[in-house]
Amino acid sequence: MPGVLYGLGLGPGDPELVTLKALRLLRAAPVIAYPAPESGGSFARSIVAEFLDAGQHEIRIGFPMRPGPPPHAIYDKAAATLAAELDRDRDVAFLCQGDPFFYGTFAAVFTRLAPRYRVEIVPGVSSLTACAAAAGTPLVQRDETITVIPATLPEDELIRRLSGAEIAAVIKLGRHAGKLRRVLGGLGRLDGAIYVERATQARQRVAPFSETEPDAVPYFAMVLVTQSGGSGLR
Amino acid sequence: MPGVLYGLGLGPGDPELVTLKALRLLRAAPVIAYPAPESGGSFARSIVAEFLDAGQHEIRIGFPMRPGPPPHAIYDKAAATLAAELDRDRDVAFLCQGDPFFYGTFAAVFTRLAPRYRVEIVPGVSSLTACAAAAGTPLVQRDETITVIPATLPEDELIRRLSGAEIAAVIKLGRHAGKLRRVLGGLGRLDGAIYVERATQARQRVAPFSETEPDAVPYFAMVLVTQSGGSGLR
Repeated sequence: MPGVLYGLGLGPGDPELVTLKALRLLRAAPVIAYPAPESGGSFARSIVAEFLDAGQHEIRIGFPMRPGPPPHAIYDKAAATLAAELDRDRDVAFLCQGDPFFYGTFAAVFTRLAPRYRVEIVPGVSSLTACAAAAGTPLVQRDETITVIPATLPEDELIRRLSGAEIAAVIKLGRHAGKLRRVLGGLGRLDGAIYVERATQARQRVAPFSETEPDAVPYFAMVLVTQSGGSGLR
Repeated sequence: MPGVLYGLGLGPGDPELVTLKALRLLRAAPVIAYPAPESGGSFARSIVAEFLDAGQHEIRIGFPMRPGPPPHAIYDKAAATLAAELDRDRDVAFLCQGDPFFYGTFAAVFTRLAPRYRVEIVPGVSSLTACAAAAGTPLVQRDETITVIPATLPEDELIRRLSGAEIAAVIKLGRHAGKLRRVLGGLGRLDGAIYVERATQARQRVAPFSETEPDAVPYFAMVLVTQSGGSGLR
């Protein structure tokens, strides 16, 4: 019996937003694996650092953080490394910030290993609803529709997607914030757009998007384009 | 100091998908409130029934389950009941299946009470990613967009929203399943559409949407319209 690959959704950053199931499987896994930038710490690992045991074998999978096409060779190598553990009958917990199947790197590993191994996915709290909670803005109600749009899309595609969206969440901001500002301004939807940075983390920030500096926006930031503009928590 | 209203996201149904934070706040709350059908049990309460204490005061808020306009009078009355507890300096935990701000009834209570009371939202695992996990289908990757669409919309609006969507999740199926089948068939997107019923619950079911009986579909069902049609867990 080969090992089981667990894709563990760990939520948006607050360790308390880990689920009971993810915590149980994390603690039971002899091997944990996580994505990390080529240099620097792994955000997924940092969420659960306090729950890890020194006896667990850790596999760090380094990814280039620069934009570009998917790094297929790195995914192939990561999949082979995990397969070697599974073939030794050891379960592997793959740590995923947010949810394993909602953007992120796990899907590429999953696609390579699911045909050959048993895989269990544990869904997690996604940044989408974490940002709405941070902003104090009900995201969608009743018959409303919402579209999630990566800011990394070309400008004309962003315009097209946002024009057709009733409520929108634009994710992966980073260096694309200026482009998004132009697009929302042109569509008359900048007013009421809410900027949320590092939701549920220590340095969480919520502000009207029109009042942010487009040059200082991290990748882990999102803009919620609702109709109301948010009611605001006290 | 009046009490604090907590909107607790409890996830899609599996009690193990409750977060550590929701569990802590749930256990600490002297008062819990939850939506329920006029007759029958509360789904939100059932998720955490094993964690409740007999000493906690429970407020059941009955809602009509028939379709129609939002029951404003019921929301007003529920808000007044919760306000009376908060005014007695008692914290109230409002139980929400899934996420408090992702559809559901909490937003209506929030809107009425947030101007006067401190409210804290605890995001939860939404049915959206729970269904993807159940289906073994990466939902969105890289630059992809996803639109969440209630099946309760009129047919022409469903057609319009689905035509413009790259990846779609159609929620709130119930008696609208037949309409959705027609729409997806007409758009040539029925093949590969995945039906997920009661994700993470005991009676979870995953099937090609084209093979389901449109007459026997519960409200807690969703159709994922991805490009790949899903790779399938083993």
